[in-house]
Amino acid sequence: MEQKIILGHGSGGRLTQELVRDLFCKHLGEVGPSSLDDGAVLDFPEGKLVYTTDSYVVSPLEFPGGDIGTLCVAGTVNDLAVMGAKPLWLSLGVILEAGLPFRTLEKIVQSIARTAQKAGVQIVCGDTKVVEHGKGDGIYINTSGIGVLTKPLAEDSIEPGDKILISGTIGDHGMTLLTMRKGFEVDADLKSDCAPLNHLIEKVTSAIEVKWMRDPTRGGVATALNELTDGNGWGILLQEADLPFSEPVRGLEELLGLDPLYSANEGKVLMVVSAADAKQALELLGGEAAVIGEVTAEHAGKLVLNTTMNTLRTLGVLTSDPLPRIC
Amino acid sequence: MEQKIILGHGSGGRLTQELVRDLFCKHLGEVGPSSLDDGAVLDFPEGKLVYTTDSYVVSPLEFPGGDIGTLCVAGTVNDLAVMGAKPLWLSLGVILEAGLPFRTLEKIVQSIARTAQKAGVQIVCGDTKVVEHGKGDGIYINTSGIGVLTKPLAEDSIEPGDKILISGTIGDHGMTLLTMRKGFEVDADLKSDCAPLNHLIEKVTSAIEVKWMRDPTRGGVATALNELTDGNGWGILLQEADLPFSEPVRGLEELLGLDPLYSANEGKVLMVVSAADAKQALELLGGEAAVIGEVTAEHAGKLVLNTTMNTLRTLGVLTSDPLPRIC
Repeated sequence: MEQKIILGHGSGGRLTQELVRDLFCKHLGEVGPSSLDDGAVLDFPEGKLVYTTDSYVVSPLEFPGGDIGTLCVAGTVNDLAVMGAKPLWLSLGVILEAGLPFRTLEKIVQSIARTAQKAGVQIVCGDTKVVEHGKGDGIYINTSGIGVLTKPLAEDSIEPGDKILISGTIGDHGMTLLTMRKGFEVDADLKSDCAPLNHLIEKVTSAIEVKWMRDPTRGGVATALNELTDGNGWGILLQEADLPFSEPVRGLEELLGLDPLYSANEGKVLMVVSAADAKQALELLGGEAAVIGEVTAEHAGKLVLNTTMNTLRTLGVLTSDPLPRIC
Repeated sequence: MEQKIILGHGSGGRLTQELVRDLFCKHLGEVGPSSLDDGAVLDFPEGKLVYTTDSYVVSPLEFPGGDIGTLCVAGTVNDLAVMGAKPLWLSLGVILEAGLPFRTLEKIVQSIARTAQKAGVQIVCGDTKVVEHGKGDGIYINTSGIGVLTKPLAEDSIEPGDKILISGTIGDHGMTLLTMRKGFEVDADLKSDCAPLNHLIEKVTSAIEVKWMRDPTRGGVATALNELTDGNGWGILLQEADLPFSEPVRGLEELLGLDPLYSANEGKVLMVVSAADAKQALELLGGEAAVIGEVTAEHAGKLVLNTTMNTLRTLGVLTSDPLPRIC
């Protein structure tokens, strides 16, 4: 008979201990906690500490390119990396819905282990709660993360002429989830870009000065760049012709009239670098990385798109979400 | 019209920004984050770092003595404090169910602010997600916490003759929730003990050597002491006659036949200290603190209760939970 999560797994007693030991710790192995204690004692390297938290409520739990386990490690690792930190440790808090099959949980924990290994981070502490069937949606995960600041960003030095780069195609994660949720047939080539970016980012930041970085998740590239321009004396002009999209995303954009600039990415980084550094940054990022625009003395505080029709369009912040629970 | 949480509050766009700024940051004030960035950059004091995480799914959200906001700060602060750490920073990840009244959320955030102030900790980073109505239960909260290790415990030095202390009455939080959930009339004097313990613990640890501490939450005093004795060459003998209970808890115990030793506490600490230090520890803890037993050469690896009838009863770990979602 298929084993399922029951409320007793959240009791804090024997069933919780067994679940943590025989499922979480077993699969996390080397990237997992060294004891079942409530917390971890860690030797902190010198320097400034960077601390972040994110809850993951993505629906469905599994999607082409990853699952909530991949996402909860990559997302928090990326939040640390774009702040100029080397990610070290993650916490893992799970809220399970009674009735969740063990097999599903096991696959998710395996994804967590694999992604943590890839990123080179340790899951050092965790917590398990169980809510009644109908009071959750399979599993919600919170990961907080600690890193050490290695490359402080120089946002204050941003000036007209600086280049805006993205590390690859735009909108893949959001468009994948949209396609699944709306019940469209999923293009075989369409998948989430969900991945930890810390090694790629380190390659760039160890060679050149990155003035600003962000992983454009919820709200997409347009929302992230709006947060950057907001209140500043300069603006950003994007070139529509230079935006990299995968073929399936471009197809969906035309079919549905949805703008992938507002679609979530889970394995892409936006960067601002000086014009002089742009070429080297592009080479270091590799793949489908592109210069997509630049900082301008005009359009102060605004994000503006120069369309392929050569018209200017101001892009605002995402107001509400066409697709909730994307991450 | 009553304002309610809608899915757009979880979009990562303008509505999320407004919610964070106008509700979370407004009420958190001085104990809140200094920016709306995804993470916080913090100066780490020298020494070892202690890191913990806990999710809170308590039902109902409000109860005599506190609410999920009080609980999510006190619980994580206490997890750090019992590891011998001075709690410094918390993260705050909330999963809101669409339809949650703003007023409810506001009261919870006010409790978070008040409790953080009392404990002297800062909420330095946060995250807000929203799930559809029917996919949550009002609000789930994850707080992770970082502290600096100030008083490492000396668990290895525990030996027969050492005393077991508790800082006050046993089982109040669990019994309060039980009474509410089962629809019994709540005794006016019965309330949760939910409170941060870090200042009280510091008072004791700065004066004497505490060999082991634990806040006996889920699973109660019996489960926490079982985890301590497990695998050791000594045991623990508790004296039933010395266990401090509030009047309403004692009444419920007799009425319902439930054992408050397995009932959750959210503002109590268990300590092991040497016989020589017990008197001073008791004075420092004050109030209704009590010596409830001692470490024995007999009963190796076990927790045993000497009942008021002068019979011995072995107390095991809580296997399943008579009352889920206590914290």
